[in-house]
Amino acid sequence: MAQNTVEKTSVTLLGLGTMGSALARAWLAAGHPLTVWNRTPARSAPLAAEGARVADSAADAVAASTLVVVCLLDDASVGETLAGTDLTGRDLVNLTTGTPAEARARAEWAHERGARYLDGGIMAVPPMIGVPEAGGYVFYSGSRELFEQHGETLRVPAGTTYVGEDAGFAALHDVALLSAMYGMFAGAAHAFALIREEDVDPASLAPLLADWLVAMAPAVHQTADRLRSGDYTKGVVSSLAMQVAGTPTFLRTAEQQGVSPELLSPYFALMRRRLAEGGGEEDLTGVIDLLVR
Amino acid sequence: MAQNTVEKTSVTLLGLGTMGSALARAWLAAGHPLTVWNRTPARSAPLAAEGARVADSAADAVAASTLVVVCLLDDASVGETLAGTDLTGRDLVNLTTGTPAEARARAEWAHERGARYLDGGIMAVPPMIGVPEAGGYVFYSGSRELFEQHGETLRVPAGTTYVGEDAGFAALHDVALLSAMYGMFAGAAHAFALIREEDVDPASLAPLLADWLVAMAPAVHQTADRLRSGDYTKGVVSSLAMQVAGTPTFLRTAEQQGVSPELLSPYFALMRRRLAEGGGEEDLTGVIDLLVR
Repeated sequence: MAQNTVEKTSVTLLGLGTMGSALARAWLAAGHPLTVWNRTPARSAPLAAEGARVADSAADAVAASTLVVVCLLDDASVGETLAGTDLTGRDLVNLTTGTPAEARARAEWAHERGARYLDGGIMAVPPMIGVPEAGGYVFYSGSRELFEQHGETLRVPAGTTYVGEDAGFAALHDVALLSAMYGMFAGAAHAFALIREEDVDPASLAPLLADWLVAMAPAVHQTADRLRSGDYTKGVVSSLAMQVAGTPTFLRTAEQQGVSPELLSPYFALMRRRLAEGGGEEDLTGVIDLLVR
Repeated sequence: MAQNTVEKTSVTLLGLGTMGSALARAWLAAGHPLTVWNRTPARSAPLAAEGARVADSAADAVAASTLVVVCLLDDASVGETLAGTDLTGRDLVNLTTGTPAEARARAEWAHERGARYLDGGIMAVPPMIGVPEAGGYVFYSGSRELFEQHGETLRVPAGTTYVGEDAGFAALHDVALLSAMYGMFAGAAHAFALIREEDVDPASLAPLLADWLVAMAPAVHQTADRLRSGDYTKGVVSSLAMQVAGTPTFLRTAEQQGVSPELLSPYFALMRRRLAEGGGEEDLTGVIDLLVR
């Protein structure tokens, strides 16, 4: 049988931090011709040994491939790095962490320079890149044509989830999920703090805690349904009034265990505020509206 | 074949709120002789129609069965309700919501009155009671003998998880898990707030959010391992320093989206404090130690 000789898409990658280097290795391992550039040249050497072409300048790197991926420190670095390059006809994929507003402005900036633009938000840490079974993925938004044309190449380092033509939506989804994760970590930190001075093994609490969080996470589906319908009261099992009535037990327990309530009390304060404004029959969805100015 | 004539354990239940009534119905449905009492007698009538014996007083109810379950408003109600009853030789199971310290004091109080004591923390809402597939369960702690003798009866309304002879441990586990859940809900509230004014369907975000939280929940196992070993730095992938460097993106996104950062910023503040104290190479575990006074 003939060998598979289908040519793999050439990729240019600017930015070889830990994440950029992981991306580079995934494309090299999959046989994609890869041109790399990094402000600090020392990071390029190990990749050159693995088959990457090292460009002398960002402009040279951008000239090497139609598909140009940037994974830099922040949005300002993207502007600085690409300032002297010719983006005409380029497909720019920006995996640099930033805000939705930054992504939207950067998309416009790229369009003005003749490039198609796709923004990405990486939902993975570097060791998960190139390891499909690790479950990491990248949110993409912006040019649907770019995403569809280069989908196969983009799926090499991690799974892909396209969330819309608005270039800001990838960052919006990225930040939303990571923010929710920090909330969960904050709650778990409080839980571990409660047992810190007790004769309870953290490794015994952990599986109970993980199972409970996994069981409760799907509550976000109900929240979404309520936000869509605007009805926060229909079929409520634990009303806001009942839950507010339960909060003193949590705060008193924290106090008795010598644990600061600072990670719990802001949410409880919003629950009380919504109750005071007449939301006692609702579930907890109304708290969301109090956050939006 | 002969009918199964094994006698079911008699149960006395004090407190017929929504949860108490659900417990009562589960035991009645399973064929347990049940004596009920409630401060407001009107709540007993429907249960009498379903086969419960309604006691005239708490003392009468306590006298009716060795196994006495209380599910009242709060710990003070337990003291008041049981004040005029004879607890000698009784097996008191307290499912009233309270703090670990309250449970410990109540256990001592029960022992002084000649009763064995088991405290419970219900990890379920009333509709989950008597519905094993709903996955609800009750944390129990206190008398292991009581728990083992009445295990079969206690497993009728919901699953059971015994967490130790210290009477306060059931409440401690209950409050720890629910506190963590509120943290997760707070994080999810922030996530939904970020998209509130955007053209993103909450029902599209929800499955991504639920999957992400489910994928990240097992991080608590690593946290537990670090708390046990005291080593917060070994094998860290995302260091505290790196994560603190990422927080401005989250706060700036909140600001640009018109969302108050009040549910995120306390955790970020603790991360920064731990970093300032030299924990930059750690993961996030050190935040827990900052919570304990």
